[in-house]
Amino acid sequence: MKKPYQTLSSRIAWSSPWYHIRQDEIITPDGRPALYNIIEKAAAVWIVPVLTDGRLVLIKNYRYTVDDWCWEIPAGSVKPGQSLAEAARAELREEIGGIAQELIPINHFYTANGISNEVGHIFLATGVTLGPPDHEATEVMEIHPAPLAEALHLARTLQMRDAPSALALLICEERLLGQAP
Amino acid sequence: MKKPYQTLSSRIAWSSPWYHIRQDEIITPDGRPALYNIIEKAAAVWIVPVLTDGRLVLIKNYRYTVDDWCWEIPAGSVKPGQSLAEAARAELREEIGGIAQELIPINHFYTANGISNEVGHIFLATGVTLGPPDHEATEVMEIHPAPLAEALHLARTLQMRDAPSALALLICEERLLGQAP
Repeated sequence: MKKPYQTLSSRIAWSSPWYHIRQDEIITPDGRPALYNIIEKAAAVWIVPVLTDGRLVLIKNYRYTVDDWCWEIPAGSVKPGQSLAEAARAELREEIGGIAQELIPINHFYTANGISNEVGHIFLATGVTLGPPDHEATEVMEIHPAPLAEALHLARTLQMRDAPSALALLICEERLLGQAP
Repeated sequence: MKKPYQTLSSRIAWSSPWYHIRQDEIITPDGRPALYNIIEKAAAVWIVPVLTDGRLVLIKNYRYTVDDWCWEIPAGSVKPGQSLAEAARAELREEIGGIAQELIPINHFYTANGISNEVGHIFLATGVTLGPPDHEATEVMEIHPAPLAEALHLARTLQMRDAPSALALLICEERLLGQAP
């Protein structure tokens, strides 16, 4: 299907080191001029880490945006020059000190396609062993290994309020249950 | 658990009719000054619409942000003065011309808690009948009633790439299967 909008111009309206706002002048399908703001952001990775004993590694992450402690899985933006897999391995190492035997690309999604172009990529990391993490200064988190059933319960009940983390767990559910010890 | 950051100042760095960027000067837990940008946005609703014949109503939505046609469920931001339920009923009516016998609040999530404070609220709408929709000029979408199994398959395989839509379907899965005709 073809693109139903016409783009007349494009400019960066606001920028930061993490994302910027692109403002396009467009013509809507019914012929009217309008402005469309797009939060342009690098792709990101969410990693479902399975320990050698079959438990999953969750993090409890303080999020300044919502002033809340959130159950999540390791995640982060892909940095310039990184492949998706490199970004996934780097986040695993930084956030939980994790090293995976195998890193399996699962699928991808749009995080918030009404306002942003961010693509989130889900990886399943198996045979994970834990060492010391290496958090960034703005990261405040605790590491919680959890039995598979408990982790899936947190996702299914949205006690894990971070949508991409909960989605990643549910998308991996069948595969996780299939390889449970 | 207490807030691990200290906020020194707060200002609006950029704004639009749909969201704005709040920029806070903070002190990180390790005592360093930093800037934190928060995309402040109204709460939003995602509605899982179940027709009287048991089918779900999906939409195929063109998203300018990602230049892609996306499988989704009806959704939208809560407008000033609207309750969550009012917003859900309004989006149902606008996007698919839907009127629900019952609207059941299910749960809520953070859409993108690394950058935004948006809270997404999931509603299950049952006994839905369809009339003419009333789209906004920037909305380009097609309405697709789909058997329950097909809709859940689209979510589980992420052919439904919109993360909140896929998550909402999977969160409602047990309830949907329980009430399938």
